[in-house]
Amino acid sequence: MAALFLLVLVGKIVAQDKVEKWDVFELTLKGPSTGNPFMGTELIAHFTNGDKVYDQEGYYDGNGIYKIRFMPDKEGAWSYVTTSNKKELNNSKGNFECTPASKNNHGPVRVRATYHFQYEDGTPYWPFGTTIYEWPFQDVDTKKQTIETMASSAFNKARFLAVPPYKDRYVTGPLTITTFPFEGTNKDNWDFSRFNPAYFKNIDSCVQQLRNIGVEADMILFRPYDKGKWGFDMMGQEVNKRFTRYMVARYAAYRNIWWSMCNENSFIKSMTDEDWDELFKLVQEKDPYHHLRSIHNADRIYDYAKPWVTHVSLQYYNVVKAPWGTPLLRDLYKKPILNDEINYEGDIESRWGQLTGEEMTFRFWNAYIGGGYATHGETYKTSPWISYGGKLIGTSPARIAFLRKIVESGPKEGLSPIDQYWETNMAGKAGEYYLIYFGKDKLTKWDFVLPKRDLTNGAKFKADIIDTWNMTITPVDKEFEVVPMPDNRYRFIEKNKASIKLPAKEYLALRIYKVADGTKVANDGRHELE
Amino acid sequence: MAALFLLVLVGKIVAQDKVEKWDVFELTLKGPSTGNPFMGTELIAHFTNGDKVYDQEGYYDGNGIYKIRFMPDKEGAWSYVTTSNKKELNNSKGNFECTPASKNNHGPVRVRATYHFQYEDGTPYWPFGTTIYEWPFQDVDTKKQTIETMASSAFNKARFLAVPPYKDRYVTGPLTITTFPFEGTNKDNWDFSRFNPAYFKNIDSCVQQLRNIGVEADMILFRPYDKGKWGFDMMGQEVNKRFTRYMVARYAAYRNIWWSMCNENSFIKSMTDEDWDELFKLVQEKDPYHHLRSIHNADRIYDYAKPWVTHVSLQYYNVVKAPWGTPLLRDLYKKPILNDEINYEGDIESRWGQLTGEEMTFRFWNAYIGGGYATHGETYKTSPWISYGGKLIGTSPARIAFLRKIVESGPKEGLSPIDQYWETNMAGKAGEYYLIYFGKDKLTKWDFVLPKRDLTNGAKFKADIIDTWNMTITPVDKEFEVVPMPDNRYRFIEKNKASIKLPAKEYLALRIYKVADGTKVANDGRHELE
Repeated sequence: MAALFLLVLVGKIVAQDKVEKWDVFELTLKGPSTGNPFMGTELIAHFTNGDKVYDQEGYYDGNGIYKIRFMPDKEGAWSYVTTSNKKELNNSKGNFECTPASKNNHGPVRVRATYHFQYEDGTPYWPFGTTIYEWPFQDVDTKKQTIETMASSAFNKARFLAVPPYKDRYVTGPLTITTFPFEGTNKDNWDFSRFNPAYFKNIDSCVQQLRNIGVEADMILFRPYDKGKWGFDMMGQEVNKRFTRYMVARYAAYRNIWWSMCNENSFIKSMTDEDWDELFKLVQEKDPYHHLRSIHNADRIYDYAKPWVTHVSLQYYNVVKAPWGTPLLRDLYKKPILNDEINYEGDIESRWGQLTGEEMTFRFWNAYIGGGYATHGETYKTSPWISYGGKLIGTSPARIAFLRKIVESGPKEGLSPIDQYWETNMAGKAGEYYLIYFGKDKLTKWDFVLPKRDLTNGAKFKADIIDTWNMTITPVDKEFEVVPMPDNRYRFIEKNKASIKLPAKEYLALRIYKVADGTKVANDGRHELE
Repeated sequence: MAALFLLVLVGKIVAQDKVEKWDVFELTLKGPSTGNPFMGTELIAHFTNGDKVYDQEGYYDGNGIYKIRFMPDKEGAWSYVTTSNKKELNNSKGNFECTPASKNNHGPVRVRATYHFQYEDGTPYWPFGTTIYEWPFQDVDTKKQTIETMASSAFNKARFLAVPPYKDRYVTGPLTITTFPFEGTNKDNWDFSRFNPAYFKNIDSCVQQLRNIGVEADMILFRPYDKGKWGFDMMGQEVNKRFTRYMVARYAAYRNIWWSMCNENSFIKSMTDEDWDELFKLVQEKDPYHHLRSIHNADRIYDYAKPWVTHVSLQYYNVVKAPWGTPLLRDLYKKPILNDEINYEGDIESRWGQLTGEEMTFRFWNAYIGGGYATHGETYKTSPWISYGGKLIGTSPARIAFLRKIVESGPKEGLSPIDQYWETNMAGKAGEYYLIYFGKDKLTKWDFVLPKRDLTNGAKFKADIIDTWNMTITPVDKEFEVVPMPDNRYRFIEKNKASIKLPAKEYLALRIYKVADGTKVANDGRHELE
């Protein structure tokens, strides 16, 4: 939480004298309001605490108020000094104390071990995302309900738009929008040279509210949904850059920010991949804390291998129709894979919003068994969650919460494929932990055979049968001892050729975990492809 | 065929005075044999025919003989002049006549329409590859048999190694190798500064023999199979570059050459992707004709998006386990996708060589239905085709030949997904031609419903039931007329809600083709993702 312990007025300066680690320190300066302060003002604060040094850009917040938001990442005494091409903003100095992070504050999320995530304090972060595109633009009660729903759900990442789509709802009502990102009231009188601070105060509040309930704000800067009306998707690259820079200056200090450059970017026909490169690089340069960066595709897929992309934020439904899709993407990109649009649970006319809860849950399991992640959404006619937030009424959220518990109680390294070309439905940690997902197959038994990697001769295992739909975990009342499989150089088998009986239903999984080590077996030195 | 119409001796020059288009013009020069002619000799011939201008590097062929091989791509009078830092090789001039290409000579293969291929004369080329890694190093009879087998098969691309793997077979017999790419007889006395022309004369012959039967030579320059013995996989980058340059000088003039930089490149632990970048760029720079370039991965996948890669030459078995794998790769790379190792039909102990013919055929169909291509191989204990060539004894080649006929009689644009996120088993040309593959599903009927893209109201279709395993094509005795599907904005349905009865067997396909146009339906302007 933004800990405003005390406001101190020093000359023209307002700022906290204490702020907890990874919270927002906000420096307020009085400066000129004449002319157009949004254009041509250079304002940077140089923050120092021992070997930690950051340069943070400020932004103009209207009425002669300039702000610099900073995220301290080290406890102790920070000092700062501003530089500006405006005399009144230049050479403001000060100090503040950074206090320890409070219990639920783990810092920003970082990539961990190529394919996974953790908070900066080392706590693992397993993304379980959902989609609430337009929630910042709803009425107060709906926003409150959205936050309550999120807080009581398993979802810990929200994808949403920083700028609303053009819709009658927002033009002729019931939720007419009167403040826009730029000064002006409609496309005939936008002043793209002046941001509208009142607009962004609402976004500030949205990012803060998500942070306060521990949800990452996967905020989408651009979107193609103006249908030639408002024109926020065809402002030209110079305005795009100015907008991007303003957003980074304003939001980078929030520890829960993720930068999503665009939603369905290729639908903005006027913007090339080179334009996106430029905006990505701008974010990379201007965000002192290096929050996660990605972009969400429509038909043309941006090259996620580019160095400024930290993770894949893909719309490609087929990938999660089998558990081997996500490992393929891991291998191609060597980055965390977020299947950020896998169709939505719902009953609308559009075919991308017609999944059953079973199918949504199935696709989630495929993504996580594949060593990646997925993002949920609901499109019920009576509760258009992906648009407005509000209430969840689908059947998948409970199952996704169940999956989250299983993932979080699994290996701390995260789930990874173990023998991915051959056991496409198995993930875990070789030798220790195996999660095997049977999807739509209805099996009556599973023969206890595991890929040999990291197994020891005589190692003992226990097993649970997981019903991923009915959310039950049934321990198998037996211990399993593995030995190298005769006449097979790839596998170990249970000493007594044991099987596990299964109830011939869809959506079952097995969880197998080691309870005792065996003795090491000499490796034949062959690679798994050999 | 290399048309050596007449050898003309002009001073120190031997060359043809006539050569057909896309055949090899070979200029032979006498030069110094003292010192080490492989090192430090610069020799280039400048070829001109009107606006066509090429610079082709020469190579030293031993015994004071230097050669320049050139592939003329325009009929008429070519003239050339050499430049060299060796006086005897400098300023050799001459002319030759380029005659029309003969019937089976269509020129080199180029990428067509992003995902497909054609010969330079515009004839479509549909790759149906096979794998004969070590065939150049077998005895004369086996090589002859390999060519006979290839000539009578449907395969029109061969993957093979330019340098043999280290095996007892080649060291202690039965096929002891005495000529190596470099001077010397074993790893203790290689002279990496001197190539061994005798070695390459065999490779010349192999490339020519494949060309003569219309097979593309997908020649692999490096490979990781030396187990610390011969050391051709750890020569160091300077030698790697010299070898690459020599290969390009020697083989670029063969119209059927494809450059495969390496097989399972990541198994050469000492070479980084940056090393491969450098070798790729060297080929790109030195090959005047820009033959196709790729690399074949093992576990670490080289980034096929790099600009010097012309097509994907992937080893990733899972991709062809469903028809949607290949379209995903198309979308990611925007290049032709060759699934160049999908496991092999056979019965060996290694699990990558245990496919049934049914499974190999299934994977082939998935690749082609996905708008890509695949490569075959056989690993029967009694006939190790992927190693030595010889005879094909598997059951898949006949089915692959059957598939080839179907593909070649389909749309000339090639197969592409039509509604790929929703109809993952359908390819063809929207509005005209649909190939629907049911894989392992045993259906009793197929309801005549098609994605609306490019369909017209009242258009009429005929259908064939294809048994891909038994290789039968059964016309359905009925005409089908399509109309927009009521209450569904994505599809057209048969006017009378017709179905096609299917015999509830695995490996069936349907071929549906238009026989009469209907009337155009207004497009609702929505994108398929909407």
